[in-house]
Amino acid sequence: MTRLCRTFQTAPAAVPRENSAKYLDSGLTAEGFEAPDWLAPDIEDGTAPSMKAEALENTIDRLPEYGPDFGGEIWPRVEWSYADPSFRERGVDQIDRLVGEAGDHLDGVVVPKVGRRTDVERARSAVAEAEREHGYDDGSIGLSVIVETARAFSDLREIARLGEDSRLTGLIFGPVDYTAELGGRAMDGERPQWAAMLERLSNEASAAGLLAVGGPFDQLFHERAGVTYYNAPGYADQVTREATIGIDGSWSLHPKQTVQANRIHMPTAEELERDVGKIERFVEAKAEGSGAVVLDGQMVDEATYKNFANTVATVRAIDEAHPEQTADRYDGDLVERARAVELGFEGST
Amino acid sequence: MTRLCRTFQTAPAAVPRENSAKYLDSGLTAEGFEAPDWLAPDIEDGTAPSMKAEALENTIDRLPEYGPDFGGEIWPRVEWSYADPSFRERGVDQIDRLVGEAGDHLDGVVVPKVGRRTDVERARSAVAEAEREHGYDDGSIGLSVIVETARAFSDLREIARLGEDSRLTGLIFGPVDYTAELGGRAMDGERPQWAAMLERLSNEASAAGLLAVGGPFDQLFHERAGVTYYNAPGYADQVTREATIGIDGSWSLHPKQTVQANRIHMPTAEELERDVGKIERFVEAKAEGSGAVVLDGQMVDEATYKNFANTVATVRAIDEAHPEQTADRYDGDLVERARAVELGFEGST
Amino acid sequence: MTRLCRTFQTAPAAVPRENSAKYLDSGLTAEGFEAPDWLAPDIEDGTAPSMKAEALENTIDRLPEYGPDFGGEIWPRVEWSYADPSFRERGVDQIDRLVGEAGDHLDGVVVPKVGRRTDVERARSAVAEAEREHGYDDGSIGLSVIVETARAFSDLREIARLGEDSRLTGLIFGPVDYTAELGGRAMDGERPQWAAMLERLSNEASAAGLLAVGGPFDQLFHERAGVTYYNAPGYADQVTREATIGIDGSWSLHPKQTVQANRIHMPTAEELERDVGKIERFVEAKAEGSGAVVLDGQMVDEATYKNFANTVATVRAIDEAHPEQTADRYDGDLVERARAVELGFEGST
Repeated sequence: MTRLCRTFQTAPAAVPRENSAKYLDSGLTAEGFEAPDWLAPDIEDGTAPSMKAEALENTIDRLPEYGPDFGGEIWPRVEWSYADPSFRERGVDQIDRLVGEAGDHLDGVVVPKVGRRTDVERARSAVAEAEREHGYDDGSIGLSVIVETARAFSDLREIARLGEDSRLTGLIFGPVDYTAELGGRAMDGERPQWAAMLERLSNEASAAGLLAVGGPFDQLFHERAGVTYYNAPGYADQVTREATIGIDGSWSLHPKQTVQANRIHMPTAEELERDVGKIERFVEAKAEGSGAVVLDGQMVDEATYKNFANTVATVRAIDEAHPEQTADRYDGDLVERARAVELGFEGST
Repeated sequence: MTRLCRTFQTAPAAVPRENSAKYLDSGLTAEGFEAPDWLAPDIEDGTAPSMKAEALENTIDRLPEYGPDFGGEIWPRVEWSYADPSFRERGVDQIDRLVGEAGDHLDGVVVPKVGRRTDVERARSAVAEAEREHGYDDGSIGLSVIVETARAFSDLREIARLGEDSRLTGLIFGPVDYTAELGGRAMDGERPQWAAMLERLSNEASAAGLLAVGGPFDQLFHERAGVTYYNAPGYADQVTREATIGIDGSWSLHPKQTVQANRIHMPTAEELERDVGKIERFVEAKAEGSGAVVLDGQMVDEATYKNFANTVATVRAIDEAHPEQTADRYDGDLVERARAVELGFEGST
Repeated sequence: MTRLCRTFQTAPAAVPRENSAKYLDSGLTAEGFEAPDWLAPDIEDGTAPSMKAEALENTIDRLPEYGPDFGGEIWPRVEWSYADPSFRERGVDQIDRLVGEAGDHLDGVVVPKVGRRTDVERARSAVAEAEREHGYDDGSIGLSVIVETARAFSDLREIARLGEDSRLTGLIFGPVDYTAELGGRAMDGERPQWAAMLERLSNEASAAGLLAVGGPFDQLFHERAGVTYYNAPGYADQVTREATIGIDGSWSLHPKQTVQANRIHMPTAEELERDVGKIERFVEAKAEGSGAVVLDGQMVDEATYKNFANTVATVRAIDEAHPEQTADRYDGDLVERARAVELGFEGST
């Protein structure tokens, strides 16, 4: 079954408001397309240094309350740095407290700013140690890492391979830190897209059976002639580029971004109609002895078929978890055909 | 001497027609620009499961008949899968029968869906074993692999290096399976181009002295206002992108695609004229003591010169194998100058 | 402190003119924005075979005279080839003579056409040997390599890691030789841009603490309706692409290119104003307990902040070395703010 991570939403776990857990609460109780597949209570960069302790307490406090009803997965982001042991010490403590006091409501932890493979192994040990210490089964608490340093990209193949036999679950791109490390520049106001690095991320994640998640898009708003508006096209363009190359989900900084990413990483009605139809016709042709047929101008064979099957597998996974989303987007007949069609395999990660 | 592989044409080796070897026959007897440099009788994805046995028989039957007069190389595509041993067993059998019964007419076999380096080593052993078994010299039957899984791209450097001292001959891109593996999507109807992966393929092939071949283009036809037409620009754009980055040849699914790829991977008359002219002028300047000169606004030195020499080396190889093609495309005088000009080296692979 | 290498200008060290060191002299005495951060007296491809000996003599002759007043670094390019031992022998001799007779005026040597990691180790040994032989401290003479072969790109990660504990200083892209090696083609008159390879170069250089330098742009002039003019936009576009992805400097073949690259690799007044302002406002927000704030529509946190800090760190380095350049480009008040603002770290390489 396809594991859903269309959206990875970070929520600062403590902010200087009357309710310091305001964003955490709203993330954990969001509904419909505003509900992220993965929510990351953020104890790291989204939270100011003076609020870190409160951010950890808020997370430990809110997870038992809202976790059981939250429809997605919960993955707090802790502090870490390949370059600075004091960050790692705090990260180890945060992992220990999260697992010890809220381990029943966690799917895993997100560790940022990892360096080379040996550094990821350190993070993996910290999670394993907390798991043992607090009596959880081996591998029950996952680890996802943010790939945002030159060292992590240099070792990407080796890091991903750690996931072949361990708790490593996701590779999440962190383009803002990454651009700073490389000294990249937003020369015309737009940060580099790192297209080649994203292809590698998607490839290595798939090769090791991991999820791949795209980076945040920080240009949330634009202003024109005195009016500030939500930058819907900018984010949608980025998420579309990511979806095209098999990135499984996108980072969200805002409920509107979550709505957009949940929708873009879900096949459109047109895509589903097209692909279900081609599967049906290809299965028929194969039964008559043809291995390759031209359908609507396209040469279709086993390989093409697998792409259509991916579309259907994704829709089935969403339908299982969020039937209201498939009901909202597709005609009932089409969903039925997607449920009925014979798939040779169950889609890619 | 430059080894030609401008076109890699797959032909389903059995189809449900009166003559089930129809496409095989037409590929093996094609003439002029319709004749592919490499023909791959396809026993794999282009042939339906129920026709596989007949596809193998057709190949074994037709190669002795048409092979001797076929002007290019013959590379049947067999079944294989890094993920499924039953496919590998069938592949090993098919390799054994092809080498045993038609080995005199084969240049090698094409193995698809390889995984990591160890899987390519398995394929290599299968060919070596068949070769020994049937009394062929070591290395006389080549191996080319289709790079179409995340694992193969993850191990691409290591796979290519197998070619430094073995029968491995070509790396062929398989974007359709690859897109399915990564979960990529044709969001606007167009599959991702995988530009970064193609650069790596071209690089690793050159580093190990292998040929690099681009992937198939399946959008064969378009329809507009009720008329269906061959999608000539779509394929030409893809082949041009491939040729630009040093991919040696392109995959063809159709005789019209073969015509186009044979032509695009052949320097234009304008390119040949320009590059022969610059070589002549640079050789003169060097004799007078200049290492770098400005010719037509371009700073030309030893490195630039090598690019011009590649153009000439490719034309010479085509002229040797298909003089009718060079006669068709270039002025006789220009071909003479290309034959006469002094090259310091014999071009890239 | 950020090490400057905005420009890497090669100057043929001997040309068939009355003063055969004409280009060497003008590079070493250039002023203002025409002065390159790194000057490479070129004994390799820019110099004709018959002039190589004179090129070496000119370099040894001119460095003591002009070196002490030259504001940048001096890095002669010697002969080398992974594929041909006779080139390597000449390179070893040239390195020995340069270090022995002009070692006080060299920052290092540039070795072109290196192959796999073992070949770079050979070049490294040649420099170490010359250093010992002539009594220089270990590591005092640097090594930068031109990455322009398929083998070097195949081993790029391993080559870069040599720099983690050795004299290796810079990775310089050589796209002209590289394109020839891969058999790439300037199909519409423009050589491929190798975008994916440049991302890797920038990444591996940063991961190992090295400088990354982009390749030369040889289309120096264009002609239109009988008038030949300097191709300012072509070069500026290339340098801008390089700067965007964190390439530290660009290769220059001409004083006009040096002016352009020095300026493009220097933040604009607008960039500096924007980034200094955002740092000032972010520091204030953080003191009030916010880890992430929206500034001018952009979500700003620690990671975003590092990008702004890079801008300031680059300006400070230029201001230190070339105060006339910062005075030329920025308002005095802005430079003061850039000097005053608190940076948590000192920028990327």
